[in-house]
Amino acid sequence: MAGGVEEVVTERNKKVLLKKYVTGFVEETDMEVVTNDNVRLEVPHGSKGVLVKNLYLSCDPYMRGLMSKLNEPTYIETFEPGSVIRGFGVSRVLESEHPDFKAGEYVWGITGWEEYSLITDTKRLFKVPFTDVPLSYFTGLLGMPGFTAYVGFYEICSPKKGEYVFISAASGAVGQLVGQFAKLMGCYVVGTAGSDEKVELLKTKFGFDDAFNYKKEKSLGAALKRCFPEGIDIYFENVGGAMLDAALLNMRDNGRISACGMISQYNLEKLEGVHYLVRVITKRLLMKGFNIADHFHLYPKFLEMIMPHIMKGEITYLEDRAEGIENAPAALIGLFKGTNVGKQLVVVAQE
Amino acid sequence: MAGGVEEVVTERNKKVLLKKYVTGFVEETDMEVVTNDNVRLEVPHGSKGVLVKNLYLSCDPYMRGLMSKLNEPTYIETFEPGSVIRGFGVSRVLESEHPDFKAGEYVWGITGWEEYSLITDTKRLFKVPFTDVPLSYFTGLLGMPGFTAYVGFYEICSPKKGEYVFISAASGAVGQLVGQFAKLMGCYVVGTAGSDEKVELLKTKFGFDDAFNYKKEKSLGAALKRCFPEGIDIYFENVGGAMLDAALLNMRDNGRISACGMISQYNLEKLEGVHYLVRVITKRLLMKGFNIADHFHLYPKFLEMIMPHIMKGEITYLEDRAEGIENAPAALIGLFKGTNVGKQLVVVAQE
Repeated sequence: MAGGVEEVVTERNKKVLLKKYVTGFVEETDMEVVTNDNVRLEVPHGSKGVLVKNLYLSCDPYMRGLMSKLNEPTYIETFEPGSVIRGFGVSRVLESEHPDFKAGEYVWGITGWEEYSLITDTKRLFKVPFTDVPLSYFTGLLGMPGFTAYVGFYEICSPKKGEYVFISAASGAVGQLVGQFAKLMGCYVVGTAGSDEKVELLKTKFGFDDAFNYKKEKSLGAALKRCFPEGIDIYFENVGGAMLDAALLNMRDNGRISACGMISQYNLEKLEGVHYLVRVITKRLLMKGFNIADHFHLYPKFLEMIMPHIMKGEITYLEDRAEGIENAPAALIGLFKGTNVGKQLVVVAQE
Repeated sequence: MAGGVEEVVTERNKKVLLKKYVTGFVEETDMEVVTNDNVRLEVPHGSKGVLVKNLYLSCDPYMRGLMSKLNEPTYIETFEPGSVIRGFGVSRVLESEHPDFKAGEYVWGITGWEEYSLITDTKRLFKVPFTDVPLSYFTGLLGMPGFTAYVGFYEICSPKKGEYVFISAASGAVGQLVGQFAKLMGCYVVGTAGSDEKVELLKTKFGFDDAFNYKKEKSLGAALKRCFPEGIDIYFENVGGAMLDAALLNMRDNGRISACGMISQYNLEKLEGVHYLVRVITKRLLMKGFNIADHFHLYPKFLEMIMPHIMKGEITYLEDRAEGIENAPAALIGLFKGTNVGKQLVVVAQE
């Protein structure tokens, strides 16, 4: 706008705030949807900020960790009570003082859970590289979860053709893709999920070789023994706790565990104990946590790999869309209850 | 002996047998020392066997795992009730039908807990490469524990100068060396052990920067926080259970855990739960188990690295010697009670 005639635009801005730090299971009442009227939509001169209209917001399990007061700093700042929730989203640039972004462009990355956001920290804001796929894909398949699946599987697990791969929370945003990557590589793939409907999806829609409903198994260890009589080479860990124990009991020599998430633990005040870590020694296992912030330089490589598969229709991708920002809190909480089927996102506005 | 005049030599052979599979804490009565008289000391022709006189036997924590009936095969066969215990040792070859070994040579590797052993599986039998160091070193400093320290520290932890290194069971055969390797590399090194005497040794004899007696700490997590206000880059894990939890709570971003042993767990019927594995994700940690059987090709490289330091007197090495094979069961059990100070070995015969 520098040099132009300035016109102050005001707009309603509906937003989701964290009401207070959360202990135990997160509930809708821990968040609050408020509307600010007559908000001035403008970017301070020289701020390098970007004003965006948010279109899609991504609901991701890691966000639970940012809702509690932590005893020590982590790589992401927690949310502050009274402040807007932040997360990945897809947005349209309305105004920009940043040389990398221009009005009218689409971007994906960290934004606010609100209708309009002024983004001043653009470190995790990226241009949407093409628009011949649904823009919402940049909250999932082509955004953080898809890239997480790519890094967590290819970079952490060093997969080889013919290996036995187990994926927990397998119908979720990350799991559904890891399974398909593993099938593309020629692995034997089994997933677990928390409903018969999801299990059916894994087997019929996502092409998993087998799947089971963990809620219906008496023993997770026995379920894995049944599905993997030869043992597991790669465990893509999204769940933690008892699921990790069961996987440890069934890992093969030199197995790899990609520690992507432990959703079963995020709402617990007292974390579950994992008992079979001795297997890390006796089976010479690798367990590795990762954060895609360390791997963003691989994003172009990821697109190069996945886009041909998408264009040939070889990747199935399932979204669970909540309509309207007022439904965002319930959508986020649904992740922890397992109510979402596929990638959970919130549609804030039409493109 | 092929082509020579055969002379059948008989000898007394005192040996340590496993009496029955062990459950819970191993006791002396789980083993039995028996003497076979008039044992024929000969190697069957064409057997590729090697007859040895055992000089030193190594007591190592992993042996506990081989005393229980396992539900599934592992990379080492368990001991059989009524059969002689096997372990690392240093021996003199009396007779050999194997082209790689000759009578009169010294060897180290897997032998029996007895005065004389007929070794038919020579896969883990190695020539002692030089005799200008005490032969007993090949049960420790230059044998399996020393090589384990080398592989577990350099290959698994990718250490860098200035990093913060924590070692549990730090005065043991492996720990005392890892600490010295870490100091040679310019790391800050803290160890823990189970007596004030051992803690003193760590600080004065082995050159650790700091050390604490875990039995005297109310909170292991708080002890580590005190010793590592900046956090831990490398945890060399010999203990498991609560010690691992405390370490997890204090690991820095991109920390590495070399899972070498979990001695606190080996005698438990019900394994302890480890609660803070979520840190593997939030801190992007690596945890890696290993077995030196996979790394023997590095043994010459290990000798090349360590021998100059030994010759210059830069490596301190402490042995705890039990005299006589009849004292081997008590010596082995002492490892789990923490009675040994330094590398526990058994002197079976004079060189």
